[in-house]
Amino acid sequence: MDEKRLKQQMRFLVEADKMKTIMRQTLLIDKSRQENDAEHSWHFALMAMVLFEYAYSPKVDMLRVLKMALIHDLVEIYAGDTFAYDDVGYEDKLKREGEAANKLFGLLPTDQGDEYRDLWEEFDEMKTPDAIYASAIDRLQPLVNNYLTDGHTWSFPGVDSTKVYKRASKIKEALPELWGFVDHMLQDSIKRGLLKE
Amino acid sequence: MDEKRLKQQMRFLVEADKMKTIMRQTLLIDKSRQENDAEHSWHFALMAMVLFEYAYSPKVDMLRVLKMALIHDLVEIYAGDTFAYDDVGYEDKLKREGEAANKLFGLLPTDQGDEYRDLWEEFDEMKTPDAIYASAIDRLQPLVNNYLTDGHTWSFPGVDSTKVYKRASKIKEALPELWGFVDHMLQDSIKRGLLKE
Repeated sequence: MDEKRLKQQMRFLVEADKMKTIMRQTLLIDKSRQENDAEHSWHFALMAMVLFEYAYSPKVDMLRVLKMALIHDLVEIYAGDTFAYDDVGYEDKLKREGEAANKLFGLLPTDQGDEYRDLWEEFDEMKTPDAIYASAIDRLQPLVNNYLTDGHTWSFPGVDSTKVYKRASKIKEALPELWGFVDHMLQDSIKRGLLKE
Repeated sequence: MDEKRLKQQMRFLVEADKMKTIMRQTLLIDKSRQENDAEHSWHFALMAMVLFEYAYSPKVDMLRVLKMALIHDLVEIYAGDTFAYDDVGYEDKLKREGEAANKLFGLLPTDQGDEYRDLWEEFDEMKTPDAIYASAIDRLQPLVNNYLTDGHTWSFPGVDSTKVYKRASKIKEALPELWGFVDHMLQDSIKRGLLKE
């Protein structure tokens, strides 16, 4: 029993509790408040599991996707949440999150920290089948919540249907059978004036 | 593409959003407020992943454990959270949660609803290696948060070290190498008067 190793792991798990205080722009469906990163990560993982049959490729591995869902936003404990349509925030997002990843995954024993950091980078790069599917679900979850909360974040300055469709294109790629459903939500939102053309 | 099937799955995923409003007795580690079921489920899943090397049996399957973590508290959307040391609440917990499970998993297509309901029942019965490991982590997560919040829920009427040790015995069984660490937290809490003997 390696006591130092266990202490590092517990330190990481205690630090992870802060995810419950990192707020996102998306609202809960009951509109009572914004959701936080821990809640989003859980909802993302559940959605990845429930909709798995629609994954575009048989190469997608559910276990790796769930691991990605659980850790994909941990860097925001130090780097904060960057709103999906915040162009300025995105300029230094990579640098901020890279430093945060070093700090956060560095709490773990080296082998485990490296494994999770690699998994987080793979997710962020959206190139492998697991990362393509996972990042599509990461976009679908807030899209559904947005649609059901009168397009809350779509009403923010600078957000329009071109940008929302561009971001949603990952869903079309990774879950092609779901695209009709997503397109219907977006078209309905435009028609109702919740999403600017 | 079966539209009815997708609608059932989306209906379930939307209903699941309510997990973010089901409050537990456990506090966040920063003591700012109680945590909710969605946050707890995410933290449980992350902990199950990080501490997996300590699982008592090579038969424990990480994917099935993560699935259990993601769905294990969904029934509380209708049945509410039953405090771990609420003897009265536990009297009708099985009946309340069984009815809630019918209602909630009944939202899904039958094959998927049956799969998740079986997984939830397996978790609740704590007999298979996956369920024994998962339920131990389900107890370890609030125990750590409690220890770091001055034994918050241990100060409630009727809670004493005998009951807490009884509940924690699942951790000893499923993660024997971690027992020294858990026992240290509980003994330290007794010594500091945070947990009644």
